[in-house]
Amino acid sequence: MTDPTMGDAHPDLSLPDAERRGVYHAIYTRRDIRREFLPDPVPNDILIRLLKAAHHAPSVGFMQPWNFILIENPVVRQELKRVVDKERRAAAIVFESPRSEKFLSLKVEAILDAPVLIGVTIDPAREGPFVLGRLSDPDTDVYSASCAIMNLWLAARAEGIGMGWVTIFRREDVQGILNLPYHVKPIGLLCLGYVREFPRKPMLETEEWAYRQPLSKHVFVDGWGKQEGSFWQSISEDLDRKDVWPWEL
Amino acid sequence: MTDPTMGDAHPDLSLPDAERRGVYHAIYTRRDIRREFLPDPVPNDILIRLLKAAHHAPSVGFMQPWNFILIENPVVRQELKRVVDKERRAAAIVFESPRSEKFLSLKVEAILDAPVLIGVTIDPAREGPFVLGRLSDPDTDVYSASCAIMNLWLAARAEGIGMGWVTIFRREDVQGILNLPYHVKPIGLLCLGYVREFPRKPMLETEEWAYRQPLSKHVFVDGWGKQEGSFWQSISEDLDRKDVWPWEL
Repeated sequence: MTDPTMGDAHPDLSLPDAERRGVYHAIYTRRDIRREFLPDPVPNDILIRLLKAAHHAPSVGFMQPWNFILIENPVVRQELKRVVDKERRAAAIVFESPRSEKFLSLKVEAILDAPVLIGVTIDPAREGPFVLGRLSDPDTDVYSASCAIMNLWLAARAEGIGMGWVTIFRREDVQGILNLPYHVKPIGLLCLGYVREFPRKPMLETEEWAYRQPLSKHVFVDGWGKQEGSFWQSISEDLDRKDVWPWEL
Repeated sequence: MTDPTMGDAHPDLSLPDAERRGVYHAIYTRRDIRREFLPDPVPNDILIRLLKAAHHAPSVGFMQPWNFILIENPVVRQELKRVVDKERRAAAIVFESPRSEKFLSLKVEAILDAPVLIGVTIDPAREGPFVLGRLSDPDTDVYSASCAIMNLWLAARAEGIGMGWVTIFRREDVQGILNLPYHVKPIGLLCLGYVREFPRKPMLETEEWAYRQPLSKHVFVDGWGKQEGSFWQSISEDLDRKDVWPWEL
């Protein structure tokens, strides 16, 4: 909570040590879970806690563009599974061999297995045509809804609940199944449930599909590609050091 | 950490109580800060902690599309201020009176005042043309970068640091100032620094510009607009109840 190097020129509004640690703990050990959900139901009060966390995300112009469609009917779930699987097979063709076979061997969704399934949508027309901060960037509704999903994901991790964000579907298919207005966009099918473990590494890394990049490749100073000067020198080495939290990868 | 109603059918992977509380504490008390940043510098080690938290966000197909451009040069900062202010004046004209005057009275950015200024960008070409989970939805790079910003925001709140995500600018202006490749999109200018307080309510609500919606308006079951059946009955009332955390609004 206190850091002797900071002096006391500003009030210390940091969270108490254990709470602050919790934020990083959730961030570092959150995983995108696609398999091995346990069948145990998620109690309603915990589900509501997660939805409230999502609803307290920031939104540009306070437009709160998100909706959460909880899937209860097994027929609706089967329909969603069908269109996700269709898109998975279409994607496999686009990837081409040998990437195609590798992709088909991955379990990329748990639509039927996860006890909780939530469709998240964006209504770009919410709060009228002119939204503060949105006039110059129409993607701000996407930013806001993604932040809501991130909040939900971290709250789920805190509760010991795993989550996978499935984006393998055609927008039009999901719009039809969930009866969405034409202008409302589905941005994800969230699979949630208790798990036996949060794997130490992302599944795509374990499966040798893709790898975590060094953070230092992603940080510049004052302009694209610029990695020079005394400020850069003072931070560059530490960007890739893993010594602050025990969960760092 | 344990909930007697859950039984012990699954391992309890929830975070320790104080850590779990910390996640919700950060989520509920995070604010979009636009004014009253204190001049105290943010130590490099804390800045790095925030960037690492961002870099550990989920990304579709593990594409890690984000870059963080730290603004050190005061001339670059002045240039960004200029184009944000230009867009602010343009937006005021679009809003029309009396919304226009109200908008101009709001302090919507702290480009010059915040000790730390970070431009966040998305490179849609990262990881090649075909990214897992992205074939059917080209916005997945936006989802991922937004999640990174959300992680950074919550880590900042945990450290007692305020943040504002500014989206009031023309993409082409910021691309020019930061020398971004044509295909790289700036999605925000993040203003960060210590603050005297995290206001209890969002600024746009205090200023009577927009209001928080009841969560129950945003939740459906099995399809758009559907709020019926026994499952809905069992959760609908509790969606708007504020009794779990002391920070709920």
